[in-house]
Amino acid sequence: LLVGSLAFEGMDQLDLTGPFEVLSRMPGAACRVYAKSAGIVRDVKGLGIIADAALAEAPQLDVLHVPGGFGQEALMDDAEVLDWVARQAAGARFVLSVCTGALICGAAGLLKGKRATTHWAVHHLLPLFGANAEPARVVVDGSLVSTAGVTAGIDGALTLAALACGEDSARSIQLAMQYAPDPPFDSGTLESAPPQIVEGARAAFADITRRREATARRIGLLGH
Amino acid sequence: LLVGSLAFEGMDQLDLTGPFEVLSRMPGAACRVYAKSAGIVRDVKGLGIIADAALAEAPQLDVLHVPGGFGQEALMDDAEVLDWVARQAAGARFVLSVCTGALICGAAGLLKGKRATTHWAVHHLLPLFGANAEPARVVVDGSLVSTAGVTAGIDGALTLAALACGEDSARSIQLAMQYAPDPPFDSGTLESAPPQIVEGARAAFADITRRREATARRIGLLGH
Repeated sequence: LLVGSLAFEGMDQLDLTGPFEVLSRMPGAACRVYAKSAGIVRDVKGLGIIADAALAEAPQLDVLHVPGGFGQEALMDDAEVLDWVARQAAGARFVLSVCTGALICGAAGLLKGKRATTHWAVHHLLPLFGANAEPARVVVDGSLVSTAGVTAGIDGALTLAALACGEDSARSIQLAMQYAPDPPFDSGTLESAPPQIVEGARAAFADITRRREATARRIGLLGH
Repeated sequence: LLVGSLAFEGMDQLDLTGPFEVLSRMPGAACRVYAKSAGIVRDVKGLGIIADAALAEAPQLDVLHVPGGFGQEALMDDAEVLDWVARQAAGARFVLSVCTGALICGAAGLLKGKRATTHWAVHHLLPLFGANAEPARVVVDGSLVSTAGVTAGIDGALTLAALACGEDSARSIQLAMQYAPDPPFDSGTLESAPPQIVEGARAAFADITRRREATARRIGLLGH
């Protein structure tokens, strides 16, 4: 079971590393990281992650994993990356879209007519790519498993592991990772966070959200 | 606020990357990764992460972050690493121990007389390092924040962020990460997982647990 994660400058590293942790524990799985060039990729906060190989060197993947992060914007017009994503997705058993990785998947044409989700800050942009936006943490539609923001990738990867390897495997992975989450606060959604926290987060995301919306309107209309 | 994560061959990458995601979002925080040598460190499943600098190059950290993973065993006798951990911990505001990183902290003498927790597979070894083992997901004792296995590092890092920067900052980070976890199964603890899953996990961990116990008895007796 060959799993390939797309890495890019300015990605949000947990979008990649959370699912990597789960998927790499699937029986018989081999996880590799691919980027435009092999070598160091820096996430938005500076964590350096190694891309094992360039996109062109990747064999057909069984699972294509597309993380998000601020750096996603730079890929929305990148024919090399979008073609790779579209081509790999066509032959893969599963595509796992995490956070704003959904926008990359959308630009590659993977969301047309699909039920999907993404980070709360850009959830309203999904229809621009032809998706049926669902207000859920994890959405499975055929081979596409899409997740909400960042940490939702772990939940989505466990869902995918169960689909790919059976529920017992997924449960074993969950126990090994001691994944019985217990956040110290209840502030992970727009509904549960205090109003001033929501307001601050919306303000912090306002600029990038505007840019993402402009890009989505432009790219979505191109109709990849 | 300077945050330094210890990286080592065979670590469990999510022990590092989960807390990195949280701590790097603290206002004014800068997160760096340190290892015996600068450069690529491979986690137990092969993910390559960049150590920004060698241990000796690290200034005094405000937050020392110690992940775990199978590779922890090789550090239990490593004077360079243990001295670094002990010295950094002495001057840090906080130490975050994740998963079997607690065993490294124990070997460095940080657990003596402290309440602490770790991954369920090695929780019984904590007293060998003089710790008061608590069956909790996150334990705060003074400057030491210790967590249970792997994914518990995210909960521990949010707890630490609240202590270091205030609860509002921690809540804002939680919302940005959309951390409202919703595992598809209830199988993250020995108590909640089905008996055959627990049995399988114990069997899978049996060899490394035996080795860890032998090491703990030997190192613990040395009385670092």
